[in-house]
This record gives sequence, structure tokens and C-alpha cells, in this order.
Amino acid sequence: MQTTPAPSSDLFGRHDSARCRIMQAAVDAFGRRGYAATSVREIVEHAGVTKPVLYYHFGSKEGLMKAIMDEAAKAVSAVVEHARLEGGTARARILRLCESLQELVRAHTSELRVVHAVYYFAPELLPKIDFRVFERLIVGELEEIVGAGIRTGELKPVCPRHAAVLVAAVLSAFLDEELIARDVPRTEVDLEPVLDLTFDGLCPSPTA
Amino acid sequence: MQTTPAPSSDLFGRHDSARCRIMQAAVDAFGRRGYAATSVREIVEHAGVTKPVLYYHFGSKEGLMKAIMDEAAKAVSAVVEHARLEGGTARARILRLCESLQELVRAHTSELRVVHAVYYFAPELLPKIDFRVFERLIVGELEEIVGAGIRTGELKPVCPRHAAVLVAAVLSAFLDEELIARDVPRTEVDLEPVLDLTFDGLCPSPTA
Repeated sequence: MQTTPAPSSDLFGRHDSARCRIMQAAVDAFGRRGYAATSVREIVEHAGVTKPVLYYHFGSKEGLMKAIMDEAAKAVSAVVEHARLEGGTARARILRLCESLQELVRAHTSELRVVHAVYYFAPELLPKIDFRVFERLIVGELEEIVGAGIRTGELKPVCPRHAAVLVAAVLSAFLDEELIARDVPRTEVDLEPVLDLTFDGLCPSPTA
Repeated sequence: MQTTPAPSSDLFGRHDSARCRIMQAAVDAFGRRGYAATSVREIVEHAGVTKPVLYYHFGSKEGLMKAIMDEAAKAVSAVVEHARLEGGTARARILRLCESLQELVRAHTSELRVVHAVYYFAPELLPKIDFRVFERLIVGELEEIVGAGIRTGELKPVCPRHAAVLVAAVLSAFLDEELIARDVPRTEVDLEPVLDLTFDGLCPSPTA
């Protein structure tokens, strides 16, 4: 049985392990100065370990970033799996999946902010890191749900891929709200009414 | 090695001015190493000017970043204004606005990538830079268009703000595709069919 990480849980496992301390120190440093400008020395000093300990666990700074991405992907994957276990209409399942991911991001903002920033901003990590893992996980699950909704007649026979990209775009906009730098005033709009519009459409039905 | 600005690039004005060379050098350096890790010395060396020239034009590294944001906002504003001059249905106007912004981002990817990254990744610039300027410009215009569409009966009496946030989310997802690091494989989905789904909705009309 899969469990969703509780909001207070540590994305990188037990805090007292050297591996976890290094990952947390790396998130701090990457978050403050960016991936490229952060040295291995800074990270080990921050984590209170020696360089060989970092190399033993991660091989390199790149390996460390890859491990951070992997842990984040595992957490997203666990949320997706958990949301799948509950049934309901496509609309309810999509709302639940989106809200669960929003909670995950709220619980692990600094880690996921670094993952998010690297996505846009560390071309030197390409192609070693699979940048599309989050998108595949989320859009893939949304496609499944939309497909199921079409089969029951709840949804129109739209292209499941296009519908999944649409819902993922809405989700992404709301997750971005959580991931932008602190102190930027937030948009005061909730996810649910915007998601509702994707189901109901902006145009009157042609038969009306 | 100095990156030459794209041939068509005129986001920062005339290429031969010191002001423009400094901004282009800053975009290049911020893009490679991030804002925090880039020194004024690196930028002036790159631009082939002296520090006093940079301070004369921008006051500080922060002032330089602010100027880059301002130029980008001006460019977005010009696209929004231009799209407004043409008429048509709300659906046509929204599609045109989104496609114009997509073209702008394609023409000025490196500059807008830096602006975008700072949004998530330079908390030290807060609150000196208005991070919401792009959102206000675009969501504001979308609200106008949705309001006009509701008045003509083309659109349902939805909340214009929610509708604008929905369309902006779709637009944002497609602009992000342009702004992510080079070499990340692109999603092979076009903007228009996804935007169409926002108008037509995923659910069958209740009367059908």
C-alpha cells in the first residue's frame, strides 16, 4: 500500500543521515546562488561532512542534483499513485490529483523550487537529467483519467492528450504560484473554479 | 566567448550602443551563471566597457536587471497593444494574442529566459522589481476580451477573471516550452487545439 508523504515528512528521508544532510545543504545553496555557482566545497561545509562523503553518496555535484530530481520524482509519483487508488468521476479525480500535488508543493517548496529552476536554468546538466519526468507522470495520469471519463460518457470524445495538456497547464500555473520567490504577492484565485471552467467551457453550448 | 544577439534581436534597442551591449552581456552572464553569481566586473568585461559606464546607465547590477525587466515588459506591452487594434470574436482575439506572445518569446528567448528565471530564483531582488508586470498585462487584456465576449453573447457569463487565469495558464504552458533550456525535447502539441478546448469544454453540454 502506497502512502502519500505527510506534509511534514522529509522529501530526502531521515534528517540525521549524511546523505539527507548533503541533499538539504545542496537545496539551500542551489536555491540561494543557483546550481552553476555553487561549489562542492560549499555544500560539504554546509552539511558538516567531508568531500569524500559527498562523492561516496552522489559521485559528483551533477549526481547530487540528479538525486534531488529523483527524490522529487518519487514523491510526485507517490502522490499520483495514491490519487489513483480512489475512484469517482473524472472531474473529481482530476481535482483531487491537482489538489494533492498542490499540497506536496506547499510541503516541499524549497526542494521543488530548486528542481523547477534547474529545469529552466542549468543547460550544463543536459542531457544527463530527465527533465520531462514530472510532466510524463502528471500528463500521463491525466490522460488516463480523461480516457476513462470519455468511456463512461462523462466527458466528450476529445483528444485525451490535448485535454491532459490543458489540465496540466492549469495545474502548473497554480503550482508555479507556490514556487515563485517568497514575498511576491500571490494571485487570489483558487484552483477549483478555474478547473471547473475547463470542464464546462467558456462558450455556450451550440444547442442552447 | 561573446554570444552574438540574434540578428533580429532589438529588445534592448540599437546594438551599437554601450547600454544595449551591457544589457546583452548581462543576459548572457545571468543566463549561464545566474543573477546572484554574476559580478559587475564580468558583465563590463563581456560588454567591453568600464564599470563607470555601467553605473552611469544602470546605477547597479540590480538596476541593470530592472532595466532588462522593463524592456521585456515594454515589448510584451507593445504586442498586447498591437493585438488590441485588430477586431474579431473573443476566440479569434485570444488566439491572436497568444500566438503573438509566442512569437515574441521565440524571437527573444535568451532575454526572456533570464527574466523568467529571476522570477523564481532571485529573492534578493525583492521587492525592488515588480514581478507581476507580465501577468497583469496579459491577464488584464484577457479579462477585457472575455468581458467583451460575454457582452456579445459569444461567451457564457463566466467570471472574466477566472476565464483570464485559465487562458493565461494555457498560454504560460506553451511559452514555458519556449523558455526551458535548449535540448529538452519539446512537447509535440500545438497551442490552438488546447485553447479550443477551453472554449468548448471537456464535458458534454447539459442539454445534449
